[in-house]
Amino acid sequence: MRTFTGEQWLMRIFIGENDHYGHRPLYEVLIELFRKEGCAGATVLRGIAGFGTHRAYHTDRLLELSHDLPLIIEVVDSHEKLTGLLTALDGYMGGGTITMEQVTVYRYGSS
Amino acid sequence: MRTFTGEQWLMRIFIGENDHYGHRPLYEVLIELFRKEGCAGATVLRGIAGFGTHRAYHTDRLLELSHDLPLIIEVVDSHEKLTGLLTALDGYMGGGTITMEQVTVYRYGSS
Amino acid sequence: MRTFTGEQWLMRIFIGENDHYGHRPLYEVLIELFRKEGCAGATVLRGIAGFGTHRAYHTDRLLELSHDLPLIIEVVDSHEKLTGLLTALDGYMGGGTITMEQVTVYRYGSS
Repeated sequence: MRTFTGEQWLMRIFIGENDHYGHRPLYEVLIELFRKEGCAGATVLRGIAGFGTHRAYHTDRLLELSHDLPLIIEVVDSHEKLTGLLTALDGYMGGGTITMEQVTVYRYGSS
Repeated sequence: MRTFTGEQWLMRIFIGENDHYGHRPLYEVLIELFRKEGCAGATVLRGIAGFGTHRAYHTDRLLELSHDLPLIIEVVDSHEKLTGLLTALDGYMGGGTITMEQVTVYRYGSS
Repeated sequence: MRTFTGEQWLMRIFIGENDHYGHRPLYEVLIELFRKEGCAGATVLRGIAGFGTHRAYHTDRLLELSHDLPLIIEVVDSHEKLTGLLTALDGYMGGGTITMEQVTVYRYGSS
């Protein structure tokens, strides 16, 4: 059954695979945060190349980019929920970029 | 040659790698549907971690997330085309989330 | 420290893994271009399946799709910067699709 959830927001967090919080990979910590905060879902995508959003590169050699592959973490939820998450994220993010945009959302489920 | 296609829509379908339709992976069935419906293109991205949009998790253990990796299927087309697809998708989707948003589109091609 | 960068644009370039410029993979050439042009960052995602945006398929057999996996290259920057890049991209793109959309951007950094 399709449910029209209406206008919600997509938050996308650009970090690096080598980013950590304490001794744990940052993306794992963030996924755990989103689950605890009751988000409907989250997805972590890993790029095969990239540069920059997570930290500065001091080289021009493309090969060195592969040492810290870019990650994009996506969460779709209400604007209120994501605004609250943004404040929570400030305690974890040492670098990187977050984008937010409005999307129309349909949810499927058996209930 | 660049062609300005104008305002179109991006549809993104969040499902799980283990989702099936009959005996076939759901993402394969959907890609085939989009080709038959004459869409200009479609892309399937696989996440490295995630939770939730495709089915409920009854555990807090992060390791178990890897058993059903999240997929995002992307299609860019006219609003009319995507609205028609949405109705067709209702017959295939048992769970998951679909988002739609307007984008400006440029197409490149030799013709 | 979180910095509100305000309204910027997300450019997404859909090409194929087999697309080349000269003897080099096109995605590498584009990433290099974005670095030289001073973009804050870029990310290359590789799909696991797909069709169409990068070149026409003359087969219905899904298995053949895997020969040229789809890539999505993402750049977040000002509208002015991306408009300039679009003109530069015309010299490299032989096929494919580019989408642009407005997003709200927050940057994190130590400075």
